Amino acid sequence: MRSKIARQIVLAARPHGQPKLSDFRLEETAIPTPSAGQVLLRVQYLSLDPYMRGRMDDRKSYAQPVPLGGVMGGESVATVIASHHPGYSEGDVVLAQTGWRTHALSDRPDLRKLDPAVAPVTTGLGVLGMPGFTAYCGLRLIGRPTPGETVVVAAATGPVGSLVGQLATIAGARAVGIAGGPEKCAFMKKELRFDAAVNHRATDFPAQLAAACPNGIDVYFENVGGAIWQAVLPLLNNFARVPVCGLVAQYSGAPNGDGTDTLPATMRGILSKRLTLRGFIYYDFVQGHFSEFLRDVGAGVADGRIRYREDIVDGLDKAPEAFIGMLEGRNFGKAIVRVDA
Amino acid sequence: MRSKIARQIVLAARPHGQPKLSDFRLEETAIPTPSAGQVLLRVQYLSLDPYMRGRMDDRKSYAQPVPLGGVMGGESVATVIASHHPGYSEGDVVLAQTGWRTHALSDRPDLRKLDPAVAPVTTGLGVLGMPGFTAYCGLRLIGRPTPGETVVVAAATGPVGSLVGQLATIAGARAVGIAGGPEKCAFMKKELRFDAAVNHRATDFPAQLAAACPNGIDVYFENVGGAIWQAVLPLLNNFARVPVCGLVAQYSGAPNGDGTDTLPATMRGILSKRLTLRGFIYYDFVQGHFSEFLRDVGAGVADGRIRYREDIVDGLDKAPEAFIGMLEGRNFGKAIVRVDA
Repeated sequence: MRSKIARQIVLAARPHGQPKLSDFRLEETAIPTPSAGQVLLRVQYLSLDPYMRGRMDDRKSYAQPVPLGGVMGGESVATVIASHHPGYSEGDVVLAQTGWRTHALSDRPDLRKLDPAVAPVTTGLGVLGMPGFTAYCGLRLIGRPTPGETVVVAAATGPVGSLVGQLATIAGARAVGIAGGPEKCAFMKKELRFDAAVNHRATDFPAQLAAACPNGIDVYFENVGGAIWQAVLPLLNNFARVPVCGLVAQYSGAPNGDGTDTLPATMRGILSKRLTLRGFIYYDFVQGHFSEFLRDVGAGVADGRIRYREDIVDGLDKAPEAFIGMLEGRNFGKAIVRVDA
Repeated sequence: MRSKIARQIVLAARPHGQPKLSDFRLEETAIPTPSAGQVLLRVQYLSLDPYMRGRMDDRKSYAQPVPLGGVMGGESVATVIASHHPGYSEGDVVLAQTGWRTHALSDRPDLRKLDPAVAPVTTGLGVLGMPGFTAYCGLRLIGRPTPGETVVVAAATGPVGSLVGQLATIAGARAVGIAGGPEKCAFMKKELRFDAAVNHRATDFPAQLAAACPNGIDVYFENVGGAIWQAVLPLLNNFARVPVCGLVAQYSGAPNGDGTDTLPATMRGILSKRLTLRGFIYYDFVQGHFSEFLRDVGAGVADGRIRYREDIVDGLDKAPEAFIGMLEGRNFGKAIVRVDA
């Protein structure tokens, strides 16, 4: 039995540091009616991603901030439940930028249809979606590991990190993953088949990382920033490449350690080791590389060479708690909210 | 009348922060005698370069530190005054790694002979030597400005910066130079024909830099670090390139501003603007590009399209004072010591 009421989660307050539950508000609203050229979508699965934290701040970035009182943005897997658009039929399953809500209108021509027969539709939010493509671009186009080189990635059981390590292994490189806790480390080695896994919560984490990288680090895939970068920097080899796609550890503006300025040491490392740090955002590469990504990684997922893990919570009302947990590293796999399965 | 005594300057103490005169010591020693396969060199001109500050510290870098009591390292233009090496004759003028001394032995097969008829021999230490080649590699191979883009360089009347700006102009880009004081700024615009010149000692330097870069910055050639980077970062355009070849402002370990950690803002800039920061050292490119550099820039120097300025002080004993002055930006042009002209 479907409710006639739509629900949505809006930004109630701009967080200072780590977001709190009170920074979000659940609202009820009428289910909207599609006009000509529009489709009405019912959200099945909402993706939770670290970049959303940045949009909660009122700070210029590559994307507009969410306005106060506005619906939190985000991508989801949704079903077309009414279509006034010639390209879409009732029952189509699509990827859409719906935001954190149960229902949404769309007139965008770029909704991507998903075929549930090819892969579980939730993969469109993870290994075969934006996070997977981020891993693919950063490693294949910027990191470019060669056989025998060492690739290190943090948040390594997440949707980006887990694919980075697996693609590194496929390229013949040594994959070293960093994550929080022994359970995630075991998963990395056993399921993802990384060469080594290091728990960043260990008190001797820098020493453990060094031991896991006996030949230094040639590619560090930077998706967290903060303290992990400080442990990685001394281990980087000459001519190492550092694709930078995320900085989740500093999104909440937490102070970094003891108040010293850590930029000079980073700049010295860049110079003396001839490092390349390059920031990137997946959408700069979509036109040139998305179809090859879907073909390559899709084949790997289909035949089991590439594995992934999802962390699904039930109910839109649980999205804020799950999101906060993800920022603190409490998710284990791609964070997804089952809105209306 | 030539003395039979050689002189040399050794590292007397490791500096804390900015070097002092007492960190150096002038010593006298006998002029050495060449063995078979060796040449005896008399130094004419000694080059003073910012990288030498790094070698005074006992810190791992891309080069070995100078040992306490050891002769300060450095490149010079020297004359062969006795040769027991088949490749060199008395009177040959060569570039050599002699260090800060009046006389040196060498058995290196890679001394580069200079022809005083082609260009003044001192250019081998500047515009046609290591500094010029550093400018060439960083701009042509990493910065890669396209016509209409904006290139910014600091220390812009120095041997690296002055060539960076002129090569940018030749590439059709807008060249903006940063230097200390109105005299240097006038020189940049009038002699080096930069499009704009900004005095970093001005109290409103960041605003002046922004005004000089109305379309933002596409290439920032980083050779100083420190406060200038903080003014540049907000002006960088998406996809800007930052070749990093020097950090003279932080070589002496001076604290940077107010004690806040400036790394997170730099990392955010790298990510959100998709910047590329790449460290490089000229010698990584010598094999592939030095001959094309000598041909291209040599032709520009010969026909006057490329200009350069030298700041020559007389006497080896003045080298420490001139070196300290260079680190403080008091030189005006390539810093050179005339040891025995």
